[in-house]
Amino acid sequence: MHTALELLRLLPLLLLAYLEALARLLLPPRRKSVQGETVLVTGAGHGLGRSTALEFAQHRSRLVLWDVNQHGIEETAAECQRLGATVHTFVVDCSKREEIYRAAEKDHQIEQTFAVNILAHFWTTKAFLPTMMKNNHGHIVTVSSAAGHMPASFMLSYWLFVISFSSSKFAAVGFHKALTQELSALGKDGIKTTCLCPIFINTGFVKNPKMRLTPILEPDMVAKKLLEGILINQKMIFVPSSLNIFLFMEKILPERALAAWNKLQAIQFDKVVGYRNKE
Amino acid sequence: MHTALELLRLLPLLLLAYLEALARLLLPPRRKSVQGETVLVTGAGHGLGRSTALEFAQHRSRLVLWDVNQHGIEETAAECQRLGATVHTFVVDCSKREEIYRAAEKDHQIEQTFAVNILAHFWTTKAFLPTMMKNNHGHIVTVSSAAGHMPASFMLSYWLFVISFSSSKFAAVGFHKALTQELSALGKDGIKTTCLCPIFINTGFVKNPKMRLTPILEPDMVAKKLLEGILINQKMIFVPSSLNIFLFMEKILPERALAAWNKLQAIQFDKVVGYRNKE
Repeated sequence: MHTALELLRLLPLLLLAYLEALARLLLPPRRKSVQGETVLVTGAGHGLGRSTALEFAQHRSRLVLWDVNQHGIEETAAECQRLGATVHTFVVDCSKREEIYRAAEKDHQIEQTFAVNILAHFWTTKAFLPTMMKNNHGHIVTVSSAAGHMPASFMLSYWLFVISFSSSKFAAVGFHKALTQELSALGKDGIKTTCLCPIFINTGFVKNPKMRLTPILEPDMVAKKLLEGILINQKMIFVPSSLNIFLFMEKILPERALAAWNKLQAIQFDKVVGYRNKE
Repeated sequence: MHTALELLRLLPLLLLAYLEALARLLLPPRRKSVQGETVLVTGAGHGLGRSTALEFAQHRSRLVLWDVNQHGIEETAAECQRLGATVHTFVVDCSKREEIYRAAEKDHQIEQTFAVNILAHFWTTKAFLPTMMKNNHGHIVTVSSAAGHMPASFMLSYWLFVISFSSSKFAAVGFHKALTQELSALGKDGIKTTCLCPIFINTGFVKNPKMRLTPILEPDMVAKKLLEGILINQKMIFVPSSLNIFLFMEKILPERALAAWNKLQAIQFDKVVGYRNKE
């Protein structure tokens, strides 16, 4: 009885929520400023990490760049400084939890307000979230992939790679969703979250990727879309945005049709750099 | 032009696929037999693993049981033998890749045809999949959770646990989906896949769990649902099946309404056994 009453009380809220969603759809979104915010970018030494750092530099943020490759972050830092940004760099192997904590410790005087996790989202977030929560201010960006929603069929000799790749990208989406929900449950509405899910980016990770129906993305273009989404606090960013339709199709197409569809838009590439498939 | 033509050619297939889906909905599903099949159950020493082993024993399968806890699998083995099943047991720590391979090696004369992965799905699957693929026969079961689709709000002091828990359960769903798609792309239609996504099971992992709108599950009941699903080659099993509706609601409810809904069905428990939340 008590529960039924509470369910009933949800109804006006539901109406309100739909109206709000409609208003958001029609009104131009308000952009926030990231000028002067301290932004941590992991994996900033190349590819999407570097492009993202440059975008923030153009928006006059204070940058903290992490990467395992010293030469890489120094190059990124020099480019950011040329754009007039303040930059701190740290050589960090984000696959090692202790290194993350050591870098976070050194970094203590520079309180992070933004964290763009190209890599190693769990431990970097864990290192910086408590301060963000104390201030109820911040933004956590998790980089996943379209493969975190719908696994793609790759070249068949790489099936083991595909499975572990998809699995880790699904994990990143789950991380973002759980984080978003926990922050909402804890009432920390000042901390925003964004999850980036692009299709293949041409970063040298796979060699000569080709897709039938969608173009291969360049890091600069994806970083631009990411910044646009961050500034309007968008929770989930698909690049290209037509992915929304693909994902909806996955929900409504029966199995056999879906398999044919997947075959049609097959992704092909020459090889995955640095990965050997042992069967 | 070529692509447009191929898209057009999809249309009759789409119709066929919908008819097939409809037929499947109306006709009683055909059950396969697991009698005499060799079934590997990881984490068979207690909880859902043990209950699943007992279900297969009742179906006269040949069982191979893995668990890190020797006492646990011996108890499970004794119960299975009482039901008339042949049982092999191995003490394996599934968190250690080498131990999985060593056990798989020893196990070589017993060719696995089923693998029920309560734990450590990636490496156990990798160890047994090549043989299954050679024979184009088998069934791989991945155990995930409702939290692998929709993260649940737990007691707030456990937020870090929730995030890593959800993240790993999303990974398991992604693993299952990618595996399913790769097998289909490789034409290995003799190998079936099933993903089990129950809400909280009462296995002593969390203490005294309570939920508002849904009951806490017992391992025996979940194992029964799992076997029912396996026998009809069901790809995704939600327990309770009403979870399908919840997940659909997540897709159509606007954000604010979803947050209120989540608060209403709040999960509560006394503590997570063996987990300390350090902020």
